[in-house]
Amino acid sequence: MAHNLLKGKRGIIFGALDENSIAWKTAERVYEEGGRFVLTNAPIAMRMGQINELASKTESEIIPADATSEEDLEKLVTQSMEILGGKLDFVLHSIGMSVNVRKGRHYTDEKYDFTTKGWDVSALSFHKVMQSLYKADAMNEWGSIVALTYMAAQRTFPDYNDMADNKAYLESVARSFGYFFGKEKKVRVNTVSQSPTPTTAGKGVKGFDGFIAYAELMSPLGNATAADCADYTISLFSDLTRKVTMQNLFHDGGFSNTGVSQEVIERFSE
Amino acid sequence: MAHNLLKGKRGIIFGALDENSIAWKTAERVYEEGGRFVLTNAPIAMRMGQINELASKTESEIIPADATSEEDLEKLVTQSMEILGGKLDFVLHSIGMSVNVRKGRHYTDEKYDFTTKGWDVSALSFHKVMQSLYKADAMNEWGSIVALTYMAAQRTFPDYNDMADNKAYLESVARSFGYFFGKEKKVRVNTVSQSPTPTTAGKGVKGFDGFIAYAELMSPLGNATAADCADYTISLFSDLTRKVTMQNLFHDGGFSNTGVSQEVIERFSE
Amino acid sequence: MAHNLLKGKRGIIFGALDENSIAWKTAERVYEEGGRFVLTNAPIAMRMGQINELASKTESEIIPADATSEEDLEKLVTQSMEILGGKLDFVLHSIGMSVNVRKGRHYTDEKYDFTTKGWDVSALSFHKVMQSLYKADAMNEWGSIVALTYMAAQRTFPDYNDMADNKAYLESVARSFGYFFGKEKKVRVNTVSQSPTPTTAGKGVKGFDGFIAYAELMSPLGNATAADCADYTISLFSDLTRKVTMQNLFHDGGFSNTGVSQEVIERFSE
Amino acid sequence: MAHNLLKGKRGIIFGALDENSIAWKTAERVYEEGGRFVLTNAPIAMRMGQINELASKTESEIIPADATSEEDLEKLVTQSMEILGGKLDFVLHSIGMSVNVRKGRHYTDEKYDFTTKGWDVSALSFHKVMQSLYKADAMNEWGSIVALTYMAAQRTFPDYNDMADNKAYLESVARSFGYFFGKEKKVRVNTVSQSPTPTTAGKGVKGFDGFIAYAELMSPLGNATAADCADYTISLFSDLTRKVTMQNLFHDGGFSNTGVSQEVIERFSE
Repeated sequence: MAHNLLKGKRGIIFGALDENSIAWKTAERVYEEGGRFVLTNAPIAMRMGQINELASKTESEIIPADATSEEDLEKLVTQSMEILGGKLDFVLHSIGMSVNVRKGRHYTDEKYDFTTKGWDVSALSFHKVMQSLYKADAMNEWGSIVALTYMAAQRTFPDYNDMADNKAYLESVARSFGYFFGKEKKVRVNTVSQSPTPTTAGKGVKGFDGFIAYAELMSPLGNATAADCADYTISLFSDLTRKVTMQNLFHDGGFSNTGVSQEVIERFSE
Repeated sequence: MAHNLLKGKRGIIFGALDENSIAWKTAERVYEEGGRFVLTNAPIAMRMGQINELASKTESEIIPADATSEEDLEKLVTQSMEILGGKLDFVLHSIGMSVNVRKGRHYTDEKYDFTTKGWDVSALSFHKVMQSLYKADAMNEWGSIVALTYMAAQRTFPDYNDMADNKAYLESVARSFGYFFGKEKKVRVNTVSQSPTPTTAGKGVKGFDGFIAYAELMSPLGNATAADCADYTISLFSDLTRKVTMQNLFHDGGFSNTGVSQEVIERFSE
Repeated sequence: MAHNLLKGKRGIIFGALDENSIAWKTAERVYEEGGRFVLTNAPIAMRMGQINELASKTESEIIPADATSEEDLEKLVTQSMEILGGKLDFVLHSIGMSVNVRKGRHYTDEKYDFTTKGWDVSALSFHKVMQSLYKADAMNEWGSIVALTYMAAQRTFPDYNDMADNKAYLESVARSFGYFFGKEKKVRVNTVSQSPTPTTAGKGVKGFDGFIAYAELMSPLGNATAADCADYTISLFSDLTRKVTMQNLFHDGGFSNTGVSQEVIERFSE
Repeated sequence: MAHNLLKGKRGIIFGALDENSIAWKTAERVYEEGGRFVLTNAPIAMRMGQINELASKTESEIIPADATSEEDLEKLVTQSMEILGGKLDFVLHSIGMSVNVRKGRHYTDEKYDFTTKGWDVSALSFHKVMQSLYKADAMNEWGSIVALTYMAAQRTFPDYNDMADNKAYLESVARSFGYFFGKEKKVRVNTVSQSPTPTTAGKGVKGFDGFIAYAELMSPLGNATAADCADYTISLFSDLTRKVTMQNLFHDGGFSNTGVSQEVIERFSE
């Protein structure tokens, strides 16, 4: 059910890969709420057939951009403002990839070229996106920037590997840049720490199914889905949350503050 | 601008004292968004002239109730469901009072009768409210319960006195009860940790003006006002935030994650 | 192995019940390190045969005191200084009891007289102890006050009941009083958040064995024992930690920052 | 006063630059406590005259090593074990440098080559050090690894620039590697979040004096000095803290949990 919460607002959405993506669901919901936007993804990650379908459904244009390239980002920001007819009100950063994970390198056996690449794509890219927006003075006052993250930034999940450290960096960038974006431009910056979500990317991680099941049992309201996350992001893009900034917001059915659940403890009680 | 976010939803709002109250602003905004509710306050704290005006504006009924009395709360819950025509979807707890503060007792010279009274009113009352709702099975699935709190629960502000400890207890109750309310009833429970706000209650605290000024300079987006808090609470009562639970959510213009601001440090730089 | 870390230091140790108690182990280690102290416990909780044995081993005197009674605490503080020959350097608060737990009341069905009693014993008592010390000017500069707590103050463990909220209050008292004790007397105040420990008190909690087993598997170094906790407390009483204050220190083999362990996840992976 | 706390223990100390360095003070204290170690620093950062003096005083050898070079680290670890005659018990990582800060680039105008270099030196180096130790199986059971960090990892200090993000990454590495080092080798890994300290490195940061003054007034026990930090690190290297792992430990006179102090608020009260 739509409420026109984003009517007249413009933005950029990074990271819609396919219909399982959180960014994809968010794009659909933003469109329903009246927001208009440009879709972007790394040229290498684009599945053109699918993203064209999303673009068509949401009256969006697609601008491929490598989020580690300052040049690509500069173009993306400039062209987005031209296409949308003004400065931006919202940006979603939903980008993450660990080469060490992909190549099966254990956390205690990292290859540092891989680590650096993953950090650049997953964490530093958020700074690059914001620096591009900031330098181009591309955000309207009371605009909202959101990046997706995961609780591994606070606590260790053995299979999450160097993505944990990347997410910690990303969350720090949200605070650090949020300070200046707040002071200078009245723009807020937050991260959403989402339940494990069976996206196409997530599914590739070793032991992911067992982990989803565990998280479901540990979350009093169950895991938050991609669709739930889209809803929550709408609230963060809307004018209802103007004074929330520099926060890492857990959106996880209560997982983060559950020490143990009855269902989990019972498996250890015989 | 209203979005019908709470259309068809019913609730109870505790703590609307006068038009400076966060609860008062929230009641106005909930009404705008289509929510219907019962207003309540302690008989002793009621300023009937003023709350009648709010009730009239928002088509609400008023049920006086002492939030430390299980009996009063039981009646309040039962009658609210009767008046509103069904189970509840939202509850706002905005109640706090320290007798030690009122009587000018320093934190290192507490009178423990005062401490116990303040804890009962400010902290335990939140448990009592939820236990009344829980036992009466008064909440609809995906309902939302919010209590207001302050960051003194995490860090010491010397004039905040025993309210710091009360707020820490309150936030813990949100987590503890949130676990069971989530598991059993699919209801979420959160606290909003609000900027210092010049309510009638707040203004009475020693050194409050200086503190407001300091917080304003330390918050990249400035202090969140009562009206801002009402907006934020709307988002937490709406269906956009269904999977957020057991959280303490800072709504403070960035104060909580600002170590120091440029403006503050400059006063220490000569 | 002893290192004379507490030579010449004097203190009070609350809560040594029997040889499984953390306070008991701490008393033994403090004695080994050269510290001298008074042992105290609630008259009702004392097992005189056993505590006499500890007193004899550690050359201590025993002063029964109800930690909820200002009068008892005042006497305890005064007499301790007389017995030990000077102001105090360390205090251990290891006191906790929930009447709701004892009486089998579920968290959603609290009896509030029980809640109030448990809060007074488990949480407010820490304020009362410190206020007694503060008013009597009983602490030497660079003294150290430690209270034991549990992570349920941050995250919900369903069987921990209202002790979670009591511990949250206790930890807040450590910060609040720590501010004033630091500023005015150069005394530090911290809480140690210990692994679940099979003390005589702990063993009574429903489902405790399963929980110990779970925590063991979730802690990369295994659960911290009572003896480990005694060692850690020695470090906090020693001069090595003079600038650590107002902190809640996790002493738990890594449990608190482990999202999930390999061993636990494997039980959910088929 | 020494207590023989580290008698028979061997280790490596990174980052002793001159007598203002925390690593320098730590080396002196470790030596006093009976620990023996190798000193190391980046060849480029070495001031041989001074570090030779420290080496001579502490009967240490110096092995220059670039902490971003896996090759250098591998040699360092192997040679250290040879020199010291066995596996290691403690390691101190005290390394940090931001090229953006040095070159005067504002946080919103980072040069990303600089950012990457600073991240590699300040944050990834900690992973590299631990991976070298882990692969060489160089740590004894119950060994202790400590890295120094700063609270900018949690809250923004405008002049701290990209070091905030580097420290967030470093702290995450402590947790992530701490999990595996704990499980596999019974080694603990922690970070110490130290007060701003007037080291030779720190003094170069813009506005540092004002910040030190502010932090002093905000810390109930005053800022922790380099000598205090050395003492605290001794406690973390000793056997008293064997079950503390994956923690970020604030060593700051209470700054981190002080919302505001009386002295600070008074400057905003007219």
